[in-house]
Amino acid sequence: LPPCVTPPEPGLWMWVLCTMFFMGALPSPAEMSQGHISVVLLGATGDLAKKYLWQGLFQLYMDQVSSGHSFTFHGAALTALEPGQKMMFDVLKKLACPPDEAPDRCAVLKDQFLKLSQYHQLKTAENYTVLNREIEVLLRQEGLKEAGRIFYFSVPPFAYTEIARHINSSCRPPPGAWLRVVLEKPFGHDLESAQQLAAELTSFFREEEMYRVDHYLGKQAVAHILPFRDQNQEFLDPIWNRHHVERVEIVLKEVVDAKGRTSFYEQYGVIRDVLQNHLTEALMFLTMELPGNLSRTEEVLQCKLQALRSLRGLEKHSAVLGQYQAYASHVQEELKKGQDYVSTTPTFAGVLVQSDSLRWEGVPFLLTSGKALDERVGYVRVLFKNRAYCTQSETLRDAGHSQCKAKQIIFYIGHGALNTPAVLVSRNLFRPVMPKSSWREVVGQPELHVFGQPLSDYYVYSPVKERDAYSVLISNIYHGRKDFFITTENLLASWAFWTPLLNSISQQPPRLYPGGVENQNLLDFEMVSGELAFTAAEPVELLHPDRSMPSDFKTIQSKFRQSPLVSMWSEDLISQLASDVEKAANRAVAGSGQFHLALSGGSSPVALFQRLARHHYAFPWRHTHIWLVDERCVPLTDPESNFFSLHSHLLQSIRVPYFNVHPMPVHLNQRLCVEEDGGTELYAKEIAALVANSSFDLVLLGLGTDGHTASLFPDSEDGLEGTQAVVLTESPIKPHQRMSFSLSLINKARQVFVLVVGKGKHDITTQISRVGRQPRKWPISGVSPSSGQLVWYVDYEALLG
Amino acid sequence: LPPCVTPPEPGLWMWVLCTMFFMGALPSPAEMSQGHISVVLLGATGDLAKKYLWQGLFQLYMDQVSSGHSFTFHGAALTALEPGQKMMFDVLKKLACPPDEAPDRCAVLKDQFLKLSQYHQLKTAENYTVLNREIEVLLRQEGLKEAGRIFYFSVPPFAYTEIARHINSSCRPPPGAWLRVVLEKPFGHDLESAQQLAAELTSFFREEEMYRVDHYLGKQAVAHILPFRDQNQEFLDPIWNRHHVERVEIVLKEVVDAKGRTSFYEQYGVIRDVLQNHLTEALMFLTMELPGNLSRTEEVLQCKLQALRSLRGLEKHSAVLGQYQAYASHVQEELKKGQDYVSTTPTFAGVLVQSDSLRWEGVPFLLTSGKALDERVGYVRVLFKNRAYCTQSETLRDAGHSQCKAKQIIFYIGHGALNTPAVLVSRNLFRPVMPKSSWREVVGQPELHVFGQPLSDYYVYSPVKERDAYSVLISNIYHGRKDFFITTENLLASWAFWTPLLNSISQQPPRLYPGGVENQNLLDFEMVSGELAFTAAEPVELLHPDRSMPSDFKTIQSKFRQSPLVSMWSEDLISQLASDVEKAANRAVAGSGQFHLALSGGSSPVALFQRLARHHYAFPWRHTHIWLVDERCVPLTDPESNFFSLHSHLLQSIRVPYFNVHPMPVHLNQRLCVEEDGGTELYAKEIAALVANSSFDLVLLGLGTDGHTASLFPDSEDGLEGTQAVVLTESPIKPHQRMSFSLSLINKARQVFVLVVGKGKHDITTQISRVGRQPRKWPISGVSPSSGQLVWYVDYEALLG
Repeated sequence: LPPCVTPPEPGLWMWVLCTMFFMGALPSPAEMSQGHISVVLLGATGDLAKKYLWQGLFQLYMDQVSSGHSFTFHGAALTALEPGQKMMFDVLKKLACPPDEAPDRCAVLKDQFLKLSQYHQLKTAENYTVLNREIEVLLRQEGLKEAGRIFYFSVPPFAYTEIARHINSSCRPPPGAWLRVVLEKPFGHDLESAQQLAAELTSFFREEEMYRVDHYLGKQAVAHILPFRDQNQEFLDPIWNRHHVERVEIVLKEVVDAKGRTSFYEQYGVIRDVLQNHLTEALMFLTMELPGNLSRTEEVLQCKLQALRSLRGLEKHSAVLGQYQAYASHVQEELKKGQDYVSTTPTFAGVLVQSDSLRWEGVPFLLTSGKALDERVGYVRVLFKNRAYCTQSETLRDAGHSQCKAKQIIFYIGHGALNTPAVLVSRNLFRPVMPKSSWREVVGQPELHVFGQPLSDYYVYSPVKERDAYSVLISNIYHGRKDFFITTENLLASWAFWTPLLNSISQQPPRLYPGGVENQNLLDFEMVSGELAFTAAEPVELLHPDRSMPSDFKTIQSKFRQSPLVSMWSEDLISQLASDVEKAANRAVAGSGQFHLALSGGSSPVALFQRLARHHYAFPWRHTHIWLVDERCVPLTDPESNFFSLHSHLLQSIRVPYFNVHPMPVHLNQRLCVEEDGGTELYAKEIAALVANSSFDLVLLGLGTDGHTASLFPDSEDGLEGTQAVVLTESPIKPHQRMSFSLSLINKARQVFVLVVGKGKHDITTQISRVGRQPRKWPISGVSPSSGQLVWYVDYEALLG
Repeated sequence: LPPCVTPPEPGLWMWVLCTMFFMGALPSPAEMSQGHISVVLLGATGDLAKKYLWQGLFQLYMDQVSSGHSFTFHGAALTALEPGQKMMFDVLKKLACPPDEAPDRCAVLKDQFLKLSQYHQLKTAENYTVLNREIEVLLRQEGLKEAGRIFYFSVPPFAYTEIARHINSSCRPPPGAWLRVVLEKPFGHDLESAQQLAAELTSFFREEEMYRVDHYLGKQAVAHILPFRDQNQEFLDPIWNRHHVERVEIVLKEVVDAKGRTSFYEQYGVIRDVLQNHLTEALMFLTMELPGNLSRTEEVLQCKLQALRSLRGLEKHSAVLGQYQAYASHVQEELKKGQDYVSTTPTFAGVLVQSDSLRWEGVPFLLTSGKALDERVGYVRVLFKNRAYCTQSETLRDAGHSQCKAKQIIFYIGHGALNTPAVLVSRNLFRPVMPKSSWREVVGQPELHVFGQPLSDYYVYSPVKERDAYSVLISNIYHGRKDFFITTENLLASWAFWTPLLNSISQQPPRLYPGGVENQNLLDFEMVSGELAFTAAEPVELLHPDRSMPSDFKTIQSKFRQSPLVSMWSEDLISQLASDVEKAANRAVAGSGQFHLALSGGSSPVALFQRLARHHYAFPWRHTHIWLVDERCVPLTDPESNFFSLHSHLLQSIRVPYFNVHPMPVHLNQRLCVEEDGGTELYAKEIAALVANSSFDLVLLGLGTDGHTASLFPDSEDGLEGTQAVVLTESPIKPHQRMSFSLSLINKARQVFVLVVGKGKHDITTQISRVGRQPRKWPISGVSPSSGQLVWYVDYEALLG
């Protein structure tokens, strides 16, 4: 008996059978020139292992038995040896032979597979050391070269760190052989936790050793998106862009609900469970630039990462959220919560994702998933714009594939009406090139309608062999195809994208829906100016009458320093401010034909700029002049420049005439803010020449924690008093040199809006609410338009702390 | 017998009958306090009069008999009195009673109408004097006050001027009464002829006296577009714009061909016959801003004119053209043309119209009309973007009006499947407000599909009384509603819009189509980057094998002054140049990450700028720096400035970062091109700072008739020799002062393209093709990049004269 195997105990016949043949099944070294691979499945008796992983490993064995590699399979769990052995071999006995495999061959291979598999209890550090020694001894005895080791973590994430530490310290293969650790989601809960987990793992494993599984990447239809784009480049190149794509839908609908899983689900919800990973990955395959060579993993991963990073940030209203009605009671029962426990965990979400890449700018990507829906189905649907006009009347057109029919490409992930993975291409688009070895054209069910058209309107392909996602992924782990897995960078970029949305909706009550076919149109949603909203109003009868939801403060509108005050949560405040700015603009343009708007630098206005750029399409930009209230003495192209920020967040997205943009002349004669260059006089002259009475229609100001506004700091020598319009000042923080409107110029404006946002501004807000006019101490207190209006926009956090 | 009526001749019983009662039918002055209206129908026995106008006048009489006005109706023609009388009364006898009129009342009124009608021969000046005298005498005798006179010109346009002269000199009503002359199209053949005709008419009539008929404005569905928009403002305001409208189709399809009308048709073709007038008018009703008050005619007309003027100019490829196959033989037979006569007159056209207004920018308006098509139908269809996602599967949605169904509003002009004028609004949009007195909701033919949906998906309204367009228009003439007619400004703006297209396609062979249902998809077309193209290739069997078409020169590509030459017709040349510029840009960006492009002023590059703005969406603008080769010493906001032109035609349509735009500093210290201000040094420094070795990636030059290029004129003191990069020069034409790149700077470029377009450049092109390097005489001859490439883009007209 080899030393790595403990003696059998009577009665465990399977174990006996297995260990008796364990070594005998290994072929001789001569045949196995490629070396030996040890696969360790941690969590060998868990659900995932039972359902998919052992079957996937068996498939790997069947596929690779003649590859030149030899294999052993080590199931491991916390369970003690004997019950663990029993449980594991109960699973293995039930392994199925795939329909495309000859039954005789399969039976023989299954027999061998069982012989090559053994169970280990892995609990203590010593267990790992023993496992490692067993592998070493076995290989030495058999004279096998070690090719590599695969550790598959099918365990809860809290166990990751300890297992990782043990593997790293005790189970690394000798030099020359590789280590691959396979990790299952969840990989964190938000950006911070994902970063923490990633940092821990990185201390044990190198990036190339980690294989994070998103089993969607193993779904045949998803896995074929990139090859399809590559093989059909000729047809797709001209149309795979914003000029031709109308919208993309990425959808995973489930019929089941969260019952029995609420301990997990209540912490995660549908966005973390499905959108952040599966749907985002499918989205990347669609939107990424096509690498020159698909077989270059590194190139593929880089293109994907770039696509992920070019997604436009999500806002609260990028999503619509739902929760099936029975969820509350499922949570109460399973998590032993009281009747007053309120869950805002969404079980349904529709999210509008947009990309800022040149290729996709403006194309809506709708990501949707939910539980307790009407059907189980998954698909990625690319709908093209209809650009054709058919002169002949509908009724008199021939049966051919008119250019007026919808044009779409669908990667059908599975289930639903087709009940198979498939690729569908509208016949009026093109006949796709498909690899004959893996996809075959199918004709059938002509009466079936999918996506608004009869199936006969499409070229339809389905896989020659239907393969489970885990089989596909296990094969890719074996082949070292890292592009089928989630890299650390990829993972963190995805969390960076989703976390702001998750934070902003965490307190938002989802719409309740009854579940199943009853939902009808309750979860239909639509795009309205770059946001999403349910199309139907929420029916009253669905609301729990006694349900208490975290409710917003009411909008506070009163007085602050004797001037009107608008106060809301910051996101709402920015919306309100943006629409007030638009109103002011329309009023000014209606009056004088022009709108002179002076904007401040700093971080608070950035959200306003973005809001204006993305939601105010009717803003009269053509008649608007844009001025800077203050500027840092750096070149305009320096990212520290206020103008640069204004340009990135607003100017580059709108159409203001070039002549109407007035950056401050801080950079003259190749030097910055030198008094002799007369930049302040130059700007003052420009203002005098264009703005009637130097009286701006609207000046937008901020407030610093020291009470500064514009670039007028406490005790500044210039700008707080006197009549000079534009002044040079010194900031206590870098870059020190500034150019700024003076109080005198600001106070000539017709309207002044002061925007104050964030907890950090609470103290100064409180302070200045109490003081009189003391501009040398608190420059902001000197803002008091002589004949114009002052309005304060202060968010709840700044106002109330 | 009153003096205005000549004695009856025996046998003309109808005449006797009529004249006997002519006066007796007039009511007494007491009843007729509003005064008397004389209607003179010129061309009283012509086709239009027979078919529509007399019936329209009879309808007017029936509607207005109790209005307080009295009427007489004077038919007139060139025909002598007796046969004319007979012909006219043969028409009048057949006047029909409308179905909604009580038969008894109608019979009485018809009788009276006949009595109030008489025939006049109007040929000589004297005839007109006599007519005038007759009207005067009649009114004096009856003691009636004259309210006004209507002269309806139902005569060929060549007769207009003479008739107009006679009316103006002999038939004007006395002061206090109005004159209305009603004109029928065609109103010219292109802008020039329309201007000429308009000028002639204007010498006889004041603008407010002229009523130009476009009978489409009297079609009930067309006439209701504005009221519909007005009455449904609440629903339409948010969606009647480019953010919500996907496309608009304005369509008039005919089954008949041009047989019997080719003497007219061969000169006009479908664009002049239908698109320039009917479809354009319908388009205006859709796109114009809604006036504050629809009853203010002047406001309506102004809004309409503004909409017409904001249409984007058409180019050759804005249209697809067809000609039904039998047209050639129809023309040959009717116009006695030989077998070798080739007609390029289109009998089918699809045109893509776009508006540059903020509301409609980017929305495609497809105007389509043709003869010998599969069905007779007219409609204006507004299709909205589909912004909804329906979560429930199609098969499980309820029968309600899902937000995922198409959303459209259709003004159905008539014929076709509905066979009635109608207004259709998708039920998932809104229930429209419709005036109950004139439109009623109809439900019917649930099995009927229109525009891709069952009729039951729409709210459908049809007129309470179906009224012929001419009845509607005659009523509006009576009411003085000029907004139902085409003003001179409107007419000329429409011709100004259509004429460039008509000129550019005049020699273009239309696609042949068999006619009728046989056309199938042969006339389907689609939008491709802002242009139109047929979707199907032209089938070979349809081309006349012996048909000789005006054929283009082949593209000439050879050498000019030892450098590569590209020569084509100007429009193709501009396309080629634009795509060569894009290629250069992509090459430069791929190499250095930046593209430094220097552009010349003048008129030739404007077409290039427009082409780049409208057709090159993938141009790497974000990485492009734009410089000016030369500038006039005027402020940048002066329309004479080269930069201003560049801005209007290119910069305002694309997204170049603000920092990458480099206008020449001609305006410093509030003065223009003063040497001491150092503008040339400033620009040279900027170039040196940003452009490696001051070597531009591409410099685009033009050529003046005197051989100048950039702003380097013959015998210039600066810029032709020496190493100064940027120079001040003097132009022989205003504005004299210029700033310009020097030859030295130009010749450092990596590529220089010289664009020469138009017949006016033929002489200088020929001249410089022969001379050596003589920059003082011909500055262009000094262009010779030291290590870069020079390419000449010269159109056929400049090259070949």
